[in-house]
Amino acid sequence: MEGDRISCHASVKKVYERIKEDGITNIWDRYEAQGMGGNPDRRCNFCQGGMRCDLCSNGPCRANAETDKRGVCGITADGMAMRMMLLRNVMGASTYQYHTEQTIKTLRATALGKTPFNIKESEKLRTFAARLGVDTSGTDNEVALRLCDFVEADFRNEYGKHSKIVEMLAPQERKETWKKLGIFPNGIHSEIMRTTSSSLTNVDGDYVSLALKAMRLGVAMGYQSQIVNEYCQDILFGLPKPHKMRVDLGVLDPEYVNVLPNGHEPFLGFAMVQLAREQMWQDKAQAVGAKGMRIIANIETGQEMIQRWEMDNVFFGFTGNWIAQEAVMASGCVDLFVADMNCSMPIDPIYAQKYHFKIVPVSDLVSLEGIDERIDYVPEKAREQAAQLLQMAIDNFSERRKTVLPVTGLPITESVVGFSSESITEALGGSITPLLDAIKSGTIRGVAGLVSCTTLRDSGQDCHSLDIAKELIARDVLVLSMGCGNAAMQVGGLCSPDAMELAGPGLKGLCKQLGVPPVLSFGTCTDTGRLADLLGAISSALGDVPLPDLPVVATAPEYMEQKATIDAVYALALGLHTHVNPVPTVTGAPRLVKLLTQDCKDVTGGVMNVETDAKKAVDAMLEHIESKRSKLGI
Amino acid sequence: MEGDRISCHASVKKVYERIKEDGITNIWDRYEAQGMGGNPDRRCNFCQGGMRCDLCSNGPCRANAETDKRGVCGITADGMAMRMMLLRNVMGASTYQYHTEQTIKTLRATALGKTPFNIKESEKLRTFAARLGVDTSGTDNEVALRLCDFVEADFRNEYGKHSKIVEMLAPQERKETWKKLGIFPNGIHSEIMRTTSSSLTNVDGDYVSLALKAMRLGVAMGYQSQIVNEYCQDILFGLPKPHKMRVDLGVLDPEYVNVLPNGHEPFLGFAMVQLAREQMWQDKAQAVGAKGMRIIANIETGQEMIQRWEMDNVFFGFTGNWIAQEAVMASGCVDLFVADMNCSMPIDPIYAQKYHFKIVPVSDLVSLEGIDERIDYVPEKAREQAAQLLQMAIDNFSERRKTVLPVTGLPITESVVGFSSESITEALGGSITPLLDAIKSGTIRGVAGLVSCTTLRDSGQDCHSLDIAKELIARDVLVLSMGCGNAAMQVGGLCSPDAMELAGPGLKGLCKQLGVPPVLSFGTCTDTGRLADLLGAISSALGDVPLPDLPVVATAPEYMEQKATIDAVYALALGLHTHVNPVPTVTGAPRLVKLLTQDCKDVTGGVMNVETDAKKAVDAMLEHIESKRSKLGI
Repeated sequence: MEGDRISCHASVKKVYERIKEDGITNIWDRYEAQGMGGNPDRRCNFCQGGMRCDLCSNGPCRANAETDKRGVCGITADGMAMRMMLLRNVMGASTYQYHTEQTIKTLRATALGKTPFNIKESEKLRTFAARLGVDTSGTDNEVALRLCDFVEADFRNEYGKHSKIVEMLAPQERKETWKKLGIFPNGIHSEIMRTTSSSLTNVDGDYVSLALKAMRLGVAMGYQSQIVNEYCQDILFGLPKPHKMRVDLGVLDPEYVNVLPNGHEPFLGFAMVQLAREQMWQDKAQAVGAKGMRIIANIETGQEMIQRWEMDNVFFGFTGNWIAQEAVMASGCVDLFVADMNCSMPIDPIYAQKYHFKIVPVSDLVSLEGIDERIDYVPEKAREQAAQLLQMAIDNFSERRKTVLPVTGLPITESVVGFSSESITEALGGSITPLLDAIKSGTIRGVAGLVSCTTLRDSGQDCHSLDIAKELIARDVLVLSMGCGNAAMQVGGLCSPDAMELAGPGLKGLCKQLGVPPVLSFGTCTDTGRLADLLGAISSALGDVPLPDLPVVATAPEYMEQKATIDAVYALALGLHTHVNPVPTVTGAPRLVKLLTQDCKDVTGGVMNVETDAKKAVDAMLEHIESKRSKLGI
Repeated sequence: MEGDRISCHASVKKVYERIKEDGITNIWDRYEAQGMGGNPDRRCNFCQGGMRCDLCSNGPCRANAETDKRGVCGITADGMAMRMMLLRNVMGASTYQYHTEQTIKTLRATALGKTPFNIKESEKLRTFAARLGVDTSGTDNEVALRLCDFVEADFRNEYGKHSKIVEMLAPQERKETWKKLGIFPNGIHSEIMRTTSSSLTNVDGDYVSLALKAMRLGVAMGYQSQIVNEYCQDILFGLPKPHKMRVDLGVLDPEYVNVLPNGHEPFLGFAMVQLAREQMWQDKAQAVGAKGMRIIANIETGQEMIQRWEMDNVFFGFTGNWIAQEAVMASGCVDLFVADMNCSMPIDPIYAQKYHFKIVPVSDLVSLEGIDERIDYVPEKAREQAAQLLQMAIDNFSERRKTVLPVTGLPITESVVGFSSESITEALGGSITPLLDAIKSGTIRGVAGLVSCTTLRDSGQDCHSLDIAKELIARDVLVLSMGCGNAAMQVGGLCSPDAMELAGPGLKGLCKQLGVPPVLSFGTCTDTGRLADLLGAISSALGDVPLPDLPVVATAPEYMEQKATIDAVYALALGLHTHVNPVPTVTGAPRLVKLLTQDCKDVTGGVMNVETDAKKAVDAMLEHIESKRSKLGI
């Protein structure tokens, strides 16, 4: 592959040349090798269109909606495609929830004084506890323990009883809509069981019912997993506040011992920064000939960390997103890759061997072929586990320096990160009214939540994400970006104040006035819940305007994996215009396509936009925003 | 399709002719239509071999183990195949657990006096509670409530804490093995979350780790879902005891109002039998011109019912298994098809329209396109829900009789059903010693647990299952049969005492002596757990012989869906020689195949036998049995 089919980032393109020289397997070549008939994007029609199933031994089956050819059990193409989508949703929801439960364990252990962490945000703890109806008397630790008990009980809420978390956090109008549709969820464990069981052969073959179940799981996930998770991580590690951060591959300096936490869970990453900031560890690194030791943030673990903590010479910067992973590793600067619950590629051990670094799974979910050494995260042992990891990195340094030639001259960009509901309000002078006024007056037309990953389908890394974001800001739509797609914005320069020059006149003026970039870095994909909560606050500030009537859109310009699919479904349940690219694997299911892209509007108010052309996709988003503005009379 | 590729049952072949005349879609034609190149069994190599993945948007991908072609993320063919198998396992485990939780809700509501049911087996309640360490003082209802609390708490057991149920029920040697391997499970909810999350893109790409996770889930499922479920159903509805039962499609008489509970959960089925045995309902049926009203058992709901309750003119008999479903419906005798949690085909509404019957989902998991009327089972409303259902059937009768010509002259066979650990012991005169003596002396060589479904792959309905069972009994192996495969045995005549003529001389003698058939009807696929518990008892009676050393095998000659896959994995974790047919979709994953069919023996003691030829498959089972006999010195 070449040029823009590699990436829109010069840094990644540069390391790709090194990877090619070294003749090592890489994501671009593997992507190309999957293509059929010389077209890297073309795959088996049945798999690509979703009209296939291999669940039972009468299959594998292929369906054809036009001829009503069905699976052996009689399931339609629509049923097949939606059932597989539901299964992907279950996987995404389950993984979000796993992270959340690790956070709650960490918060509990911290409240008991058993971790190297502290409760950093007493006020957020008390505000959040109060919103959930949890008694806020007593010390922070007492409140935190009560909060942990409350949410854990809700997760395990008996099948058939509504989730209290959703009851306390969701906007009134949405709750009523969800109850009417039968998609108001119970505890998420029972929801996961229910949706997984519904996906079995011969249980639910009805694409409409399966789609509703997906949305119900999405609602459970949004409130129980995402919001609880992010707010409790705020309580533990600090509220995101705007600050500068070095980004791009240039943050990797071969002369330092470089430790790269990677994945989605920031616990050991934070613990390692705390330790590495102690002189003793810098001395140890220098004793093996390094200039010092650095913790370098990556992917979503990295986003969790950089949105909350300021950079310095130890917590030095952020590399990029998932597709940059092999480029990061081939830079020749990595000593230790710390793989938590998600996003470390199965290919990584081959890179570890080639570029002489260590890779250590730190979540009991993660396993990588050929890697036997592992440290499963335990909150109570976080400090000693972090120390073990740092020592492994130090032990790696000399040999890596001896054997691997690093790639040099990679660029660094400075990005502003750390926006959250609270910090946006603060940036606005203590209230969201100026933002609402800017929307009402038409200075900005609306707001887009960009929650995305990064994929090679149809374009190079992050190219499509940047195209979409540029189109949006040029048309005076403020973008809040989350997930791996957030790294696209950061590395691509859109989270720098300079990017206001790319914005339309209204948005540019607002950016200038507030000193913010046109794309606000809003964290990880898990912050989708935080965004939903912000939308709830905006709706309420506007006098309980239903969410579907806000001049707001969601966009996933480069969704990649299963967490993204449940995010999209949650957005539909929230009633949002939801742009999704690449086109999901449902094109062989015409009734399902109609349900998602048209009829859903009459169900939840949400609708899926699957336009692949960036300009046209944003046209549709703006059309939606303007129609909502008219409806609101603004 | 023709002859034996349809079914080995004359009844099904006969109704198939009717289906063909009527030109209606059917499983046999749909199966044939899926074939490639004129071979009904041939499908896409990649789907069939398991070396494909469509989880993320960089795919769909195909892998090739020979050339080390991997998915875009770098996952191998082995990783792809095992990950998809794990996902199927999760679906099976989740569905078993769903059933179990419905049983516990029913038991709880019954103990509170809120259902039409009673605690039928006080002794079993107390024995089981005592085994779990639950306080057995007080009334049955008090003990039952404590038992419900205990198991529900264990299901929800915090992540990181071992399941008490597994701790209390599993054999010591297995527990030690599982702990050593890291596959001793926690609460099943957290296990489901853990395995589902592990299946996400970029989490666990290591086929060995994924296989171990599957076994861990299997252990959780076997004890927490299956054993708890069956024993609590025993407590509620009675212990299985040997009795005669009419089986095969001839149990359908068009002149009766016929109500067919179908699926896996017997609650409303039992409630309907209780009601229909009241004269009032028979009078109502007669008032619309019927001879009366009958509840006809089907598939696994049917097995749950017939193993526990005696037949009469109301609870008249059992039709057959899953593949017979369309034949049952096309018989023209059905008034109401009551679809609980599993096993009703997505095609059923088309049959309901054609043959004028009603189909009503009674589980909130189930949905069927075009069917709006539903009655989601609630234990506290079981009596009125059952009454509603019976009335719907009565209301259907006249119109059905007017419009549909029934198929007549279908056969009935008499089968002996209702074997369980307790009833086998009772049949042996109060102790299992005579069985052990028969094994020790070589009168019978060993025992096979046949847990299977029914599939069209490679043979007609039940043909391969019967071939395997006949080979086993001819070689003096006693067969305990479970699942849809149990119906194959019943309808195929092997659960009749006459079948002893097909047995080898040793087994024949034992059958004659005890008055039992050579294949003992042991219930549903959920009774796999009951069988595991029986093996534990045998192991203990033999002086704590490890399970892998018993002259015992497991066989699934026609596995079909995802419950079967987790049963097979559980059998491997138990350390059993496990025959599985059709060949699972892992053939494109050579290292995984080696792990399952060879190396697993050194891990858990279990091994997978995927021989497709019935005779050769049983050769391998006997070889295993004889080697274990030698090892035991018997």
